[in-house]
Amino acid sequence: MKRLIALALALVMCLGFCACSGEEAGEGTNPENVNMQGDIKSPKYVFLFIGDGMSYPQFQAAADYLGALADEDYEKALPSVDYEERQNAVLDGPKDLSFMGFPVAGSAVTYDACSFAPDSASTATSIATGEKTYSGMINVSTDGSQSFETIAEKLHEQKGFEIGIISSVNLNHATPAAFYAHQASRNDYYEIGLELIDSDFEYFAGGGLKKVTGNEGTSESLYDLAEKAGYKVTFTQADAEKVSADDEKVILIDENLADDDAISYDMDRKEGQWALADYVEKGIEVLDNEKGFFMMCEGGKIDWACHANDAAATVTDTLALDAAVQKAMEFAESHKDETLIIVTGDHETGGLTIGFAGTDYDTYLDSLASQKISYALYDEQYVAAYKENGTSFEDVMKDVETLFGLKIKGEEGDRLVLTEYELERLKAAYELTMAEEKPEYTQEQYVLYGTYEPLSVTITHILNNKSGIDFTSYSHTGLPVAVFADGAGAETFGGYYDNTDIYVKLSTLLDVK
Amino acid sequence: MKRLIALALALVMCLGFCACSGEEAGEGTNPENVNMQGDIKSPKYVFLFIGDGMSYPQFQAAADYLGALADEDYEKALPSVDYEERQNAVLDGPKDLSFMGFPVAGSAVTYDACSFAPDSASTATSIATGEKTYSGMINVSTDGSQSFETIAEKLHEQKGFEIGIISSVNLNHATPAAFYAHQASRNDYYEIGLELIDSDFEYFAGGGLKKVTGNEGTSESLYDLAEKAGYKVTFTQADAEKVSADDEKVILIDENLADDDAISYDMDRKEGQWALADYVEKGIEVLDNEKGFFMMCEGGKIDWACHANDAAATVTDTLALDAAVQKAMEFAESHKDETLIIVTGDHETGGLTIGFAGTDYDTYLDSLASQKISYALYDEQYVAAYKENGTSFEDVMKDVETLFGLKIKGEEGDRLVLTEYELERLKAAYELTMAEEKPEYTQEQYVLYGTYEPLSVTITHILNNKSGIDFTSYSHTGLPVAVFADGAGAETFGGYYDNTDIYVKLSTLLDVK
Repeated sequence: MKRLIALALALVMCLGFCACSGEEAGEGTNPENVNMQGDIKSPKYVFLFIGDGMSYPQFQAAADYLGALADEDYEKALPSVDYEERQNAVLDGPKDLSFMGFPVAGSAVTYDACSFAPDSASTATSIATGEKTYSGMINVSTDGSQSFETIAEKLHEQKGFEIGIISSVNLNHATPAAFYAHQASRNDYYEIGLELIDSDFEYFAGGGLKKVTGNEGTSESLYDLAEKAGYKVTFTQADAEKVSADDEKVILIDENLADDDAISYDMDRKEGQWALADYVEKGIEVLDNEKGFFMMCEGGKIDWACHANDAAATVTDTLALDAAVQKAMEFAESHKDETLIIVTGDHETGGLTIGFAGTDYDTYLDSLASQKISYALYDEQYVAAYKENGTSFEDVMKDVETLFGLKIKGEEGDRLVLTEYELERLKAAYELTMAEEKPEYTQEQYVLYGTYEPLSVTITHILNNKSGIDFTSYSHTGLPVAVFADGAGAETFGGYYDNTDIYVKLSTLLDVK
Repeated sequence: MKRLIALALALVMCLGFCACSGEEAGEGTNPENVNMQGDIKSPKYVFLFIGDGMSYPQFQAAADYLGALADEDYEKALPSVDYEERQNAVLDGPKDLSFMGFPVAGSAVTYDACSFAPDSASTATSIATGEKTYSGMINVSTDGSQSFETIAEKLHEQKGFEIGIISSVNLNHATPAAFYAHQASRNDYYEIGLELIDSDFEYFAGGGLKKVTGNEGTSESLYDLAEKAGYKVTFTQADAEKVSADDEKVILIDENLADDDAISYDMDRKEGQWALADYVEKGIEVLDNEKGFFMMCEGGKIDWACHANDAAATVTDTLALDAAVQKAMEFAESHKDETLIIVTGDHETGGLTIGFAGTDYDTYLDSLASQKISYALYDEQYVAAYKENGTSFEDVMKDVETLFGLKIKGEEGDRLVLTEYELERLKAAYELTMAEEKPEYTQEQYVLYGTYEPLSVTITHILNNKSGIDFTSYSHTGLPVAVFADGAGAETFGGYYDNTDIYVKLSTLLDVK
């Protein structure tokens, strides 16, 4: 309620700017009419980008990383360098991602009905419907008695908007699901898949559906059901490329599915392979129409990378989301005053910090560039083979040097040479990874490795720390998320508010009930 | 430059809201005139609150802590509780601090000329003068060739504003100094003190001056010099209470100085002892005048608590800053349209996160209430005696239970009972604290204890973690800070910008060159 009042006040304040117009101002102060009167424009094309697990630390780290890479003086200027030796070298600073330059930037608080460290199902429910629910629930009230209609459904039904849902993870994963499904458990993937088909939304693109034939593997394939319901479903990039505005309803499944049938981490993407941005570009082509469209695009693997405490994959997938945002910005250029672009997160993941106890005031973010592979692909392509072949620690370290830059010996001053302590940690993790039977973890081991492969997560921990980065958790945290907005109606997204207000602002602007 | 363009665009955008007024709009779009034309009002009374080390995690943690304390259902609703057992218990959520409800909330990026994890001298320089410099420098260019005039000096000289500088740490510490001093090193406390006296500012209040008689202890006392220069200097609360608007220039030194001659942590403050809010209230009384005033109030020990990874002291000092902000809000109520209140931070300290690897999606923030003393007072009043008396671990643990709630034995389900691993850590830290000679730290020990008393920092680490809180650093981090604004001209502080823009926005609004 307090939040609603705050929103109302914010809207009134926005309208307050029009007070100079005299008589019109009186009418303009009715929040009900903001989208029809006054200066706040109702958008016809709405892009909602959600970086899953992306809050201030994720995009600022990405911008700082870009700044560090481009800055010849970066390591010369650091606090630990003597003033004389520094020779007036000066840090250039971050290279902002495109959305960090949007004119409006607010913050949304993310707690849900059971936790200050909420999950993607409940937070996406808040964004899509304005309701709080328990972690794990999608558009259903905590007691299960109510089902909430989503902003995408309302725009589809009430305004004839075409709807696009894009995700770098599975299309029936919690965040995309929260725009079309209503389930007490985010794990009911098959039922969510059925709702995807029932949604009649025009464009789905991204990672493969989970549990395509149900939990038992005996139900009819969701893909078959989708085709029966009139969807064109593609599984290759060549077929996806052929999809056009003539196709009424499409589901594009990425050709090169990676871990858990998600799109691969952007750092693992091969030359010519579609990125998130390509799915946005194709989506615009499919959805563009006279009535308008709403596109939700999730950078879902920012979250997965943060869960795994893989800073390099976090940064590169955040940059991939930014590239996707740029496609929307290009569209907006030719549809000025009609397009609204919002870039936000659902919650923070991992407790990422630009700073680490071991490096004090120094950071070495450029070191992250020495990582050439995500933890996930490393697990799949290397660690699995180590286990099968009983690979020696020495041989493993050869890969670690090639793929992550970390080495046992190197030139003096090479920051990526492992210290004795780091080498010990890596050896202990290697032993645990190679163990035939995993022991029950001690409290210390659980904090060290979470549920990840001990070797891989220790490699990224050490590289993170050497880069001046650290994580505190394998789960989500309670940090608010940023809400960047540009275009028609953007000005209503300034301020500090609850994540449910994102829905309230959107539905008010777009005049849906 | 890019930032300036962004600022100009933001100002234009704000003015854009007036486009509905027809002809006037054309004139209004000149950013030079925003404070005289259009709807953006130039404030006469300006409050700038700086939570040192306070960014999103600090105030959100404080709000979540208050929410947790007030919420009977908090621990019943947590993610780890079975759905059935939860019986539809629902989290009430955070209880926002007063400034979190301000209508405008932007973000400022904090990097300085040498680091993404900048210090208080350089960041306060950016806020006070719009210039970037090296960590450790106060209002001087990186090569030492230029000295920058501060917003406080300009308002004093150009507009006849009275100026107040308040800090919970030493009045010649980096943050307050950045509003009146110009020194290549923040450590030149005596020289900074001389500039304090030279400033002729009307009101100084807070912690005691450092190096009152210089590095050698042979220079004339800064306090004597201040009195010679016409300052009334008080050292007791009784004398401070007597200070009134009739006193032209005053320096109020807190009576109950604590660690390093700063005001005590708010959690250690005794009944009747002045809090930060009292110094703001007195400051308003002294400064209120027809020409206007500018008051900078620093919550300096939020930073100190975060350096020491003391979450409970962080939260309580953040609440003390909020209480101080409320005094400004009370003043603003009777000076509507003339008062601007800004609440920001200079940088984040400690890499605080609301979430910890060991507690997954659960937090137990109410557990922080079991801490009854700051790490600093504990060091002074207890640890010093342990060392002197060779106190046994058993006896130390009695104090630890009384003062921090952590115990070796307790009822089943008591979350504050130490696990075997935690007890081991505490014992190891105790041994190190009691050692006659401190060994040279290993890399692991440095990360575990930083430069703090091993016993105390391990106690707070364990309590933090049990509460679902963690820190990653004993230094500052690269997280942007929030900028909350309310009142005349507040609307210009929305958006995502560089910390130097805080100065640009202020000086534009206040029309100083």
